[in-house]
Amino acid sequence: MTISNTCSALRYVRSAVRDMAPYVPGEQINDALKLNTNECAWPASPAVNRALYGASEDSSTDNLRLYPDPSASTLRQSAADLYGCSADQIIAGNGSDDCLTIIYRTFLEADGSCEVACPWPTYGLYDTLASIQGIRINHYDYAQRNNTWELPAALGQHNATLTLVANPNNPSGTHTPLLELRRLADQVEGILIVDEAYADFVSNDAERSLISVLDQHPNLIVLRTFSKSYSLAGARLGLLFAHPALVAEMNKVKDSYNVNALTQAVGTAALTDITYHAQLLSNTLAARKQLEIHLAALGWTWPQSEANFLLCTVGEQAHFIYEQLKERGILVRWWDTDLLRNCLRITVGTPENNTRLLAAIEDILS
Amino acid sequence: MTISNTCSALRYVRSAVRDMAPYVPGEQINDALKLNTNECAWPASPAVNRALYGASEDSSTDNLRLYPDPSASTLRQSAADLYGCSADQIIAGNGSDDCLTIIYRTFLEADGSCEVACPWPTYGLYDTLASIQGIRINHYDYAQRNNTWELPAALGQHNATLTLVANPNNPSGTHTPLLELRRLADQVEGILIVDEAYADFVSNDAERSLISVLDQHPNLIVLRTFSKSYSLAGARLGLLFAHPALVAEMNKVKDSYNVNALTQAVGTAALTDITYHAQLLSNTLAARKQLEIHLAALGWTWPQSEANFLLCTVGEQAHFIYEQLKERGILVRWWDTDLLRNCLRITVGTPENNTRLLAAIEDILS
Repeated sequence: MTISNTCSALRYVRSAVRDMAPYVPGEQINDALKLNTNECAWPASPAVNRALYGASEDSSTDNLRLYPDPSASTLRQSAADLYGCSADQIIAGNGSDDCLTIIYRTFLEADGSCEVACPWPTYGLYDTLASIQGIRINHYDYAQRNNTWELPAALGQHNATLTLVANPNNPSGTHTPLLELRRLADQVEGILIVDEAYADFVSNDAERSLISVLDQHPNLIVLRTFSKSYSLAGARLGLLFAHPALVAEMNKVKDSYNVNALTQAVGTAALTDITYHAQLLSNTLAARKQLEIHLAALGWTWPQSEANFLLCTVGEQAHFIYEQLKERGILVRWWDTDLLRNCLRITVGTPENNTRLLAAIEDILS
Repeated sequence: MTISNTCSALRYVRSAVRDMAPYVPGEQINDALKLNTNECAWPASPAVNRALYGASEDSSTDNLRLYPDPSASTLRQSAADLYGCSADQIIAGNGSDDCLTIIYRTFLEADGSCEVACPWPTYGLYDTLASIQGIRINHYDYAQRNNTWELPAALGQHNATLTLVANPNNPSGTHTPLLELRRLADQVEGILIVDEAYADFVSNDAERSLISVLDQHPNLIVLRTFSKSYSLAGARLGLLFAHPALVAEMNKVKDSYNVNALTQAVGTAALTDITYHAQLLSNTLAARKQLEIHLAALGWTWPQSEANFLLCTVGEQAHFIYEQLKERGILVRWWDTDLLRNCLRITVGTPENNTRLLAAIEDILS
């Protein structure tokens, strides 16, 4: 069937959509060593495999035949137990990207009255979601000093409906003290979203999460994902934490059956295997340390990372090294933007992955 | 932790969301016989179990550790092969509800310039999605004559940006001839969405689907789901078919990783087990015939169903029977609306399910 590329019905597409550039996810190349999208280097808990095995074995369980639990009750209760909050403060999402979409659609009116703000550079999807709705997004550059990244003071002085901060931040891996974020929550006229996608990797327990202080900040929303520290990027699961009254409103916008039955089962299994999760974290931190020693020997620098990746300042060779690594079957992340052109973001791999990466870099530089 | 029900941040919620009623999915009661949400009565293909078993066995496959294929290429190619179209005419969704959301967000501007239209009664989510975006939806009552439901003539004379028709329709189970829908596509000034969630149950092959004529109707979008005839409601999977140029625009609005890796795998497995799928269809049609014979003996009537459910006109006792069935652990669907108050929508079960249902009804009526 031949179909022309032009379509008379294109005129019905909203101009905001027609004019926007699509979000470009990190490259997926079969059999490549993927150090470009910050997945965990080790597989998910064996409890996840057991949950899947159970689903595969018993076709009479109706696990797949029937609609999933619309409110993911078991999963949310497990999360409430783990994080010491109540289940009615939680929404489960089809990835935390789905949670972000729910937030944007709940709070942002496309009549010119709403704006979004975030420090910059950060997770690119915050921009994409604003573009889809035709909402203006304001970037405030992180204050970079001696390889630290500090929250820009101007961020809290702007009347944005939504202010988004990733903590630790992506792509820098840097961490903002929780007290500063709490001050920001008090300061902003609107909602503050703290995206804790990488929070489990923060070395100081007490600096990991704002979930425990949610009841003191009615305008605060915290996001979590299973894609990083739980090694379940393929399952798509994120959690949103907020005041129950906000959760009730956001539930109206959420797709009824947004998290499928298998993901609810594997997510619950992963969340309750605390010992294995701790092992994944310590594996990652040990491998990061090893990687840092070798990269420092090359003269590369990076802001102190509290995540499972390093944003290395490499210099003008950055793009060349990125391309050469790709030719050798290793993917890292490079962006063609002013602030990041001289940098490579490298996900922490297993010790074997890191050895392969370092050998390739040495080969390229020699 | 005690949290007050009021939240000072509620004032940031969009008024369209604050004012709307949430979509109420069919009840889910543990251990009840669910004949209320039109799931398939038999389990999914054994190929689905094998796919899950494969995922459970091999933790080194990276199936869950890594992000899923954002474009669900293997699944889309399987669908393209089955339906005789090209993969670039297809988007995979987290259920066809996700596909509907993608469509609404691509085409509907909330500035008062856009409206949605559908014949009525139909799938309630079309309304809910409009409410979320603050879009006006216009209902045109089906012309009901001698238990046939005909498309209202006014539907095509309205300048709606989106016109939605479920074919077969839910909750009536009735079928609109494809030629009428093609005329409607030519007639409307906007996009026509034909939701073919139940199309596989249509007895006449040639009347099932508009996918094969998409290239003649640039403003036509067709939806399919795996929740009904493939018995995968728990996995959340739907497909959207449209002109490649429209698909490219809608892909910008789609969440990058909207369909998880497990669902892509089980969906592909189900789609390619054509023999088992045919068996599910013939089982369902045979069970529907058996159910119809017994319900007719009660004096109940229904429009001719081309789906896996019957919309029975029961009379003033409808709500009483619904409640009594629920007490006996059997769920059917009843709506407290003018057009449907005297009706029950009953999903076709297995012969054993149907026998249990009929015994319960006889008990209630005696």
